[in-house]
Amino acid sequence: MAIIELSHGSGGNKARNIIKDIFISRFSNPILNILDDSACIEGDLAFTTDSFVVEPVFFPGGDIGKLSVCGTVNDLAMKGATPLYLSASFIIEEGFEMEALARIASSMAKTAKEAGVLIVTGDTKVVDRRGGLKPAPQIYITTAGIGKIPKGIDVSSKNASPGDAIVLSGTIADHGISIMNARNDFGFKGDLKSDCACLNGMVEAFLSKDVRVLRDPTRGGLAASLNEIAEASKVSIVIDEEKIPVLPQVKAACSLLGLDPLHVANEGKFVAFVRPSYKNKALKAIKSLRLGKNATIIGTAERSLSGVFIRTKVGSLRPLGMLEGEQLPRIC
Amino acid sequence: MAIIELSHGSGGNKARNIIKDIFISRFSNPILNILDDSACIEGDLAFTTDSFVVEPVFFPGGDIGKLSVCGTVNDLAMKGATPLYLSASFIIEEGFEMEALARIASSMAKTAKEAGVLIVTGDTKVVDRRGGLKPAPQIYITTAGIGKIPKGIDVSSKNASPGDAIVLSGTIADHGISIMNARNDFGFKGDLKSDCACLNGMVEAFLSKDVRVLRDPTRGGLAASLNEIAEASKVSIVIDEEKIPVLPQVKAACSLLGLDPLHVANEGKFVAFVRPSYKNKALKAIKSLRLGKNATIIGTAERSLSGVFIRTKVGSLRPLGMLEGEQLPRIC
Repeated sequence: MAIIELSHGSGGNKARNIIKDIFISRFSNPILNILDDSACIEGDLAFTTDSFVVEPVFFPGGDIGKLSVCGTVNDLAMKGATPLYLSASFIIEEGFEMEALARIASSMAKTAKEAGVLIVTGDTKVVDRRGGLKPAPQIYITTAGIGKIPKGIDVSSKNASPGDAIVLSGTIADHGISIMNARNDFGFKGDLKSDCACLNGMVEAFLSKDVRVLRDPTRGGLAASLNEIAEASKVSIVIDEEKIPVLPQVKAACSLLGLDPLHVANEGKFVAFVRPSYKNKALKAIKSLRLGKNATIIGTAERSLSGVFIRTKVGSLRPLGMLEGEQLPRIC
Repeated sequence: MAIIELSHGSGGNKARNIIKDIFISRFSNPILNILDDSACIEGDLAFTTDSFVVEPVFFPGGDIGKLSVCGTVNDLAMKGATPLYLSASFIIEEGFEMEALARIASSMAKTAKEAGVLIVTGDTKVVDRRGGLKPAPQIYITTAGIGKIPKGIDVSSKNASPGDAIVLSGTIADHGISIMNARNDFGFKGDLKSDCACLNGMVEAFLSKDVRVLRDPTRGGLAASLNEIAEASKVSIVIDEEKIPVLPQVKAACSLLGLDPLHVANEGKFVAFVRPSYKNKALKAIKSLRLGKNATIIGTAERSLSGVFIRTKVGSLRPLGMLEGEQLPRIC
């Protein structure tokens, strides 16, 4: 008997397969697509949803409430849309502390205000506590979001074109490593903090007709996002290993844990594929903002090869695949 | 230390208090309101969300997939909106059977098609299984929906007016009793089946400017819905006990369990408050449809009293309050 495994919830191939086999095949319609996180409806609206199940609920740099607002705001922003409205639905296990719920709600309210979105509708369900006294009662938050796509903007994972410059908005792997550290108490030295942030302000600063792809590399990391873009756009992608910014403390933690930062989740970063003529202007606009100060051009889209490749420090190319199994459950 | 209790997830007073104290106070904005399940955005769009945690996942008359589509479609329909788009987000415990997930997805697809809505975006998260081998792995589904409100339609729980006729679309308490029976295997004789159904087709058949309130009495039953309408519209409501249709097998089960059908959940019924001059036309249109064949006028909105009252068979009036605690967790 086939059952759902934790790896079906990763950002990798197994997750994609179940989505295709179980959901896409049944829900098929002209608007639903697997490539982008948001659907385009009514001409100029983007519509998206995400569930958040992160553990622990509070972590350095954020909490499940902040994450639930940023995640859906970012899915809209990655379609070039201005986020406007959010719904928020709570599934809470009995025994969850009221004070923690209030902190989470405050965090959502603060984050929504900063991002300029309104939480306009919601639902609350309480479920019986499972498994006795341990583990601690859980909370799951599902947000859906609606945004407006400015006239003339057409951003999609299938729009990358050979020659496009690839801009990465900052350091990678901060979120995934911080959650691992918070959960397992590895006790890594240095300031490990999730990058959890709303990206719509940064996107607004450089969005133009010359932006073809926007993508936030969450589950599955930068590697999964680039592979999906390469496949959807039928281009190859070459990135320079040396150009990828990784904080020293994150790099050290990755080394110790045997992880490649390219596969580790982010919650406040994006990659943008822009026309070559626009790359300097885009980079300048992004770098001028606090969240984008480490932004850099990491590579280009190309025609000749098949897949995603990393140019190593010694100049050779090695293929960069997607994660097969599950690196870390409940990362977001 | 205050904690979340199961009763916080009911349709009663404790649920309302937590929503007010924790969420509404923090998320406050001009669009968010606690009275209706859908928010009005962008002039003519309705936006709503609901999480579904029903146990068991499959029950006579439906399953969590059908419920997750009907529930959100109905929240839109209760705003007078034509449901157009749904999002669907899945939180699945590891170990959940793949075949059951496929059945649920098929049920969602079928229900969406019948209701004329498109599932256009989604998300899937897998969480670790809690509590060892028992109980069985769970699935939670959160849907959000967008619909379009026809020009001139203004339906809201705050619009009831003294003199309005109250139309109930059919028998009550079917869903709640069926879930209780399915969960506890009471072994009640007779055909106990959830009324789980999409109501948008029926609403379309009689919607007009003469319809002031639409409400589907889910958690908390008809009693909770009527109390909320009375409070929001500042009217009194008097309903006739004899007029409320209850199937004999549901009535028998309620008697045995000591439950008042007025407090038991429905998933395929609505109450409509309509102008007195429109009541016969509305009733005729509703009764002409299969789902509305048991529709009837159960009472009127009035000015003079305060709250909701039942006219008993002997002609006296008794007040009908809201449920205080929790009748049955995980009803939807």
